[in-house]
Amino acid sequence: MTVHTGRHFLQIPGPTNVPDRVLRAMDMPTLDHRGPEFAELGLHVIAAMQRVFRTKQPVIIYPSSGTGAWEAAIVNTLSSGDKVLMAETGQFATLWRGLAEKFKLDIDFVPGDWRHGADLAEIEKRLAADKSHAIKAVMIVHNETSTGCVTHPQDVRKIMDRVKHPALLMVDTVSGLGSLEYEHDAWGIDVSVAGSQKGLMLPPGLGFNAVSDKALAASKTNSSFRSYWDWEEIIAANKLGSWPYTPATNLLYALKEGVAMLEEEGLDNVFARHKRHGAAARAAVKAWGLETVSIESHDHSPALTAVLMPEGHDADKFRKVVLENFDMSLGTGLNKWKGKIFRIGHIGHFNDLMLMGTLAGVEMGLELAKVPHRAGGVMAAMDVLTGKSVVPMTKAAVA
Amino acid sequence: MTVHTGRHFLQIPGPTNVPDRVLRAMDMPTLDHRGPEFAELGLHVIAAMQRVFRTKQPVIIYPSSGTGAWEAAIVNTLSSGDKVLMAETGQFATLWRGLAEKFKLDIDFVPGDWRHGADLAEIEKRLAADKSHAIKAVMIVHNETSTGCVTHPQDVRKIMDRVKHPALLMVDTVSGLGSLEYEHDAWGIDVSVAGSQKGLMLPPGLGFNAVSDKALAASKTNSSFRSYWDWEEIIAANKLGSWPYTPATNLLYALKEGVAMLEEEGLDNVFARHKRHGAAARAAVKAWGLETVSIESHDHSPALTAVLMPEGHDADKFRKVVLENFDMSLGTGLNKWKGKIFRIGHIGHFNDLMLMGTLAGVEMGLELAKVPHRAGGVMAAMDVLTGKSVVPMTKAAVA
Amino acid sequence: MTVHTGRHFLQIPGPTNVPDRVLRAMDMPTLDHRGPEFAELGLHVIAAMQRVFRTKQPVIIYPSSGTGAWEAAIVNTLSSGDKVLMAETGQFATLWRGLAEKFKLDIDFVPGDWRHGADLAEIEKRLAADKSHAIKAVMIVHNETSTGCVTHPQDVRKIMDRVKHPALLMVDTVSGLGSLEYEHDAWGIDVSVAGSQKGLMLPPGLGFNAVSDKALAASKTNSSFRSYWDWEEIIAANKLGSWPYTPATNLLYALKEGVAMLEEEGLDNVFARHKRHGAAARAAVKAWGLETVSIESHDHSPALTAVLMPEGHDADKFRKVVLENFDMSLGTGLNKWKGKIFRIGHIGHFNDLMLMGTLAGVEMGLELAKVPHRAGGVMAAMDVLTGKSVVPMTKAAVA
Amino acid sequence: MTVHTGRHFLQIPGPTNVPDRVLRAMDMPTLDHRGPEFAELGLHVIAAMQRVFRTKQPVIIYPSSGTGAWEAAIVNTLSSGDKVLMAETGQFATLWRGLAEKFKLDIDFVPGDWRHGADLAEIEKRLAADKSHAIKAVMIVHNETSTGCVTHPQDVRKIMDRVKHPALLMVDTVSGLGSLEYEHDAWGIDVSVAGSQKGLMLPPGLGFNAVSDKALAASKTNSSFRSYWDWEEIIAANKLGSWPYTPATNLLYALKEGVAMLEEEGLDNVFARHKRHGAAARAAVKAWGLETVSIESHDHSPALTAVLMPEGHDADKFRKVVLENFDMSLGTGLNKWKGKIFRIGHIGHFNDLMLMGTLAGVEMGLELAKVPHRAGGVMAAMDVLTGKSVVPMTKAAVA
Repeated sequence: MTVHTGRHFLQIPGPTNVPDRVLRAMDMPTLDHRGPEFAELGLHVIAAMQRVFRTKQPVIIYPSSGTGAWEAAIVNTLSSGDKVLMAETGQFATLWRGLAEKFKLDIDFVPGDWRHGADLAEIEKRLAADKSHAIKAVMIVHNETSTGCVTHPQDVRKIMDRVKHPALLMVDTVSGLGSLEYEHDAWGIDVSVAGSQKGLMLPPGLGFNAVSDKALAASKTNSSFRSYWDWEEIIAANKLGSWPYTPATNLLYALKEGVAMLEEEGLDNVFARHKRHGAAARAAVKAWGLETVSIESHDHSPALTAVLMPEGHDADKFRKVVLENFDMSLGTGLNKWKGKIFRIGHIGHFNDLMLMGTLAGVEMGLELAKVPHRAGGVMAAMDVLTGKSVVPMTKAAVA
Repeated sequence: MTVHTGRHFLQIPGPTNVPDRVLRAMDMPTLDHRGPEFAELGLHVIAAMQRVFRTKQPVIIYPSSGTGAWEAAIVNTLSSGDKVLMAETGQFATLWRGLAEKFKLDIDFVPGDWRHGADLAEIEKRLAADKSHAIKAVMIVHNETSTGCVTHPQDVRKIMDRVKHPALLMVDTVSGLGSLEYEHDAWGIDVSVAGSQKGLMLPPGLGFNAVSDKALAASKTNSSFRSYWDWEEIIAANKLGSWPYTPATNLLYALKEGVAMLEEEGLDNVFARHKRHGAAARAAVKAWGLETVSIESHDHSPALTAVLMPEGHDADKFRKVVLENFDMSLGTGLNKWKGKIFRIGHIGHFNDLMLMGTLAGVEMGLELAKVPHRAGGVMAAMDVLTGKSVVPMTKAAVA
Repeated sequence: MTVHTGRHFLQIPGPTNVPDRVLRAMDMPTLDHRGPEFAELGLHVIAAMQRVFRTKQPVIIYPSSGTGAWEAAIVNTLSSGDKVLMAETGQFATLWRGLAEKFKLDIDFVPGDWRHGADLAEIEKRLAADKSHAIKAVMIVHNETSTGCVTHPQDVRKIMDRVKHPALLMVDTVSGLGSLEYEHDAWGIDVSVAGSQKGLMLPPGLGFNAVSDKALAASKTNSSFRSYWDWEEIIAANKLGSWPYTPATNLLYALKEGVAMLEEEGLDNVFARHKRHGAAARAAVKAWGLETVSIESHDHSPALTAVLMPEGHDADKFRKVVLENFDMSLGTGLNKWKGKIFRIGHIGHFNDLMLMGTLAGVEMGLELAKVPHRAGGVMAAMDVLTGKSVVPMTKAAVA
Repeated sequence: MTVHTGRHFLQIPGPTNVPDRVLRAMDMPTLDHRGPEFAELGLHVIAAMQRVFRTKQPVIIYPSSGTGAWEAAIVNTLSSGDKVLMAETGQFATLWRGLAEKFKLDIDFVPGDWRHGADLAEIEKRLAADKSHAIKAVMIVHNETSTGCVTHPQDVRKIMDRVKHPALLMVDTVSGLGSLEYEHDAWGIDVSVAGSQKGLMLPPGLGFNAVSDKALAASKTNSSFRSYWDWEEIIAANKLGSWPYTPATNLLYALKEGVAMLEEEGLDNVFARHKRHGAAARAAVKAWGLETVSIESHDHSPALTAVLMPEGHDADKFRKVVLENFDMSLGTGLNKWKGKIFRIGHIGHFNDLMLMGTLAGVEMGLELAKVPHRAGGVMAAMDVLTGKSVVPMTKAAVA
């Protein structure tokens, strides 16, 4: 049995630290999912999620992981053989591609070095070249959780408008929603994909799609087999606050509370808080003499900071030292970054002192694991938080 | 806002009343799903579910509704055009059939009157006639939640053995598992389908497949598109107590506790308790001068009792009277039973006095809704519970 | 370990069934009891309790049992040798008397038979005879939890006014408050004593005094040693929402929620609900051919029903049968009623079906314990709840 | 409404951060306090508290604050006019003295400067001079929460033995128990006083007395009025796991879990953890160029660190800055320290990263509040935690 002498620091970039209010909301007796009290809840959470996605169009809530919502985006709108344009931003883009391959999509994968957002120039080039509009969808990861690099969906939208490409724009904002600005309607997103366990501050177990009319129209003519993920039936049932199958009632209680908390703080304040924490974390990394995976200021994620280990030092060994000495979980390096980076999550229910505990844990872990570094990261982070050092805000930060 | 002056009686046949211990277990901080503490939990719950299914073969746990586990059973083992034999036992059999149709299976649907278990004679006839073994799977609902009629999977297995048919045997035991005897291995089931929100006493949000080697072999050669539901990757990850995507961590805490409670009571005691409550409920119905949907003693479900309304009386109007006067949710009539029956759930975390409160609520509701009936159902039920009236045990009860 | 296969029925007359909302409210991180967020809570719960006591005068909240609040009433206003008039209504009156004896009060104890409220005629006689006003306080138990007999404080107030006696009127309403009408100001009560674990629907751990200006004035000149229970310091600190010592923070969260629930239902509805349940319980007792301890309709408690066992049958043996067979706790007979009565609590978070489960448990327990009785109590109770039998309302019921 | 964007840092020296396990344990339905399941709990927690106090003699658990347990110690063993020797170590010693005065004890108060443990030389002198043994009790505060100075009870015991003084030794270990070594039996303590909301990691609401045979004997001949606090009845009832009045059931659930957590970690590890955190906190204070209230290494508390503000700077203004900017509650200066010191609690459910978040909050608060200080406290603390700087252990630390 693991002995926790205080609170575990869950600083992976999701699942994130779930607020007590959300846990307690979830911890209430399950309701009849066909009764009037539930219907009220159902309508409430759907409207709440529309506000979070900033959309007036349908939001679908699945009992699923975020992965399930990826699959839903595909099976509703695309068929085997359909051409799609994806961008290699990291492991989650790669996994989504893998999923798309299982459904036999024809994938044009814009290469990337896992240290940047999507290659926008290349995307524009390929879209412009696609005169026949063979590309049915452009699929982008908003906040690439494996690298801490952001691809701004509005940048992609501008490109598509510029080259007048009619493809659907699909965005995975699993670890972006509720942490970074997101505008499903204003940015012209056709399918947004999200999950409960990041900025929404819930345990894992809910997946989301926000869908545009255009996406809905595409789904009507799409012949891919689907049932569980099928939008149509769900949207129909949702009008009365119900679902075609038993929804994950208690996670919906949690969702109501999570969104209430986001709105009490104010979404804009939530976004500003994440940016501030991102800036402080990067200041720490710099002071340690280490390098963030993300290079360009336009790409830095406000939700997590991925850090390169010095050559010859294993990131997972370091993470183990941190876990065993300081009861903190850091994110592992995924796929090609395995052992080479670690990731600091600062998404969700979080504040300055939790961040400082986190960064102190990293700094002490570097010391104990004998990873070459300079002391003082925590000092640099405090200077950002107290405003002593003025941080040049990233474009993300002022978007 | 609904005012509850005491505990709501959630007597639909699932979701069921979730024990405080399970809710409280769920109400704990989310863990790193890639860390060692989680791995211990992962291995624990998989083993626990193997004991509940009574299998030594893999059990897959999905973040999904039970419906998702239906879909998983199909997409892993069957392809469009495959012939399957299903039996019309009620609404859930019909829904599963509808799902199978969406995946373009070729369905042979043995008709039923929604008042019995599956027509075993007809199943045997059709299987025997299928000399070419075109039928790839026999798909049966164990406890038909829409009617309260049981189809005993071991009966179907005996038929298949008798006619030496090699089809897969797939069983939906969503509302059976943890309430009625179930033996995945001993009964030669190939795919079992279950959900968290019935006999396992959890909130909705988890779906389950238990799979045989034969089903696994079938999945290896099956070319149906799938990713989320794909067994292979999950089984591989499960060996280390992890999942290929973020599992519904907090529902897994709940699952650990729910199975612990079943095992503290003892599964055999759990089954006996449900039978006793079923017998008491049926005694009440009989005393009221009403009729259960289920006719044959072999078919009576220990988990719920569906009751026919007297001609000219609307079941949903009656349910509304009960809800508004007594804060009790009863199950609605589904599909062709709409308005004609109501269902009394006695699954899960339940005891004699909860049952008596439930039956008293029905009897008083009949009175207030002016439904013709005789008083005394609660008396008859008490006689069963105290042993004053010896109830001829159904075959289900002694299975 | 005790195995509970469903919810335990906690039908002692307190502690009562605590609502999930109250438990969950209590289950939140403890706050700084000297900070601004706590101060808001402090002011909130004091105001809330004033509304429940129906007073504009101070309410003091102790981290204590109700017994502590008894002691507080005494040590703040009375000194050793002071004469007080008490009435023997049952065990709690007797215990309060015992406490008063420990503080060397000179107690005039009006005798009673433990089957009625206080002997008002005798009280009037003794007060009238006390021309010198030696009696400093009249101390009455509102709802005598050991017998289910009510003494109406307003009746006592009328007597005191009639004979123009200036003694303080002190009322133990531990099991009355939040279940029966109570008017601290309008009825001219000087010290009210209450506890958290009855009609307020909280776990035990808080005691209350509501005090009049007259009582406060008495406390100022009273020289009894006291510190923990001293009103003065607490009232002073309470003005800022704080306490002179660390208050039971999490029980205060519970209190906020408990009162919120009472007010959502409406106190008058709460009282009517208790009366209705009392009437139904008494109808059941009558139908069983048993006798309630309370004899006069003016005295019947809406909060609990005490039942006499037939001669030669041990009430505690019966209670054991009920506990072991039906997982229900009934109240034991106290002191001279030991073994001779059992008590059915229907206070607090309660509804018709919980009552019916309770009464069914009693009826089945009588059967299993072979206690002579007629069947049909549950039927009689249902007739009251459905309005089929019109119950002559007690004076308590229309007060 | 206060918006918390992450967890509040409750760094007052009690109430302390309550572990989720303890909160969740408390959040379970209330039991019949006269039933067998409760009796098991009662016996369990009494035995558990005996292990924590390291005593085989009775432990009494009150529904009360720690203040109540102070009063209990006095009213059980002492009468008005009795002479007692107390030592002015700070506000809590002063408050206990105030309480003793209310009960008209004759108090010899050994003066102190609120920056040290008790003046042991002076205590020895006064005890030695008391040839007639007029002094009935020596009353000491183990861990003076208002200053962070420890008086080691075993030191006092040695003095009493040396001068062969038969007075009772009473120790307030409210904020010591469960954080600092404590040996009720081995150190010859007669009455120990404790509370739930510090090292036991519970919410406030329980007070404790551990009592020696000698103290019990004294109580038998002591004529002070008492009822609620009376040991005798409670000890008698406790033998069967019950109480003479309704105990605070749900706080007892919490107590069971809190002690379980202490024992899973191991009490010796718990003590070592607190010392380590104390050393790190003092290193931070020193690095800031500030001064701890506690001067001598023998006196430093492992449970909290009190810090002197630079002349001309108001501690409460600083605390407000910290609360508003960093959602952290620090302890205020009490009485003569009002405005001049702040206190950092590191008691209870706590770990290195929580400490680092705490110290970072202090350092950033000093910056924002423009309190003169040197940066680098957090660095110095990290050096202690990583073992880079070897801290000369205080005698307390090696006791």
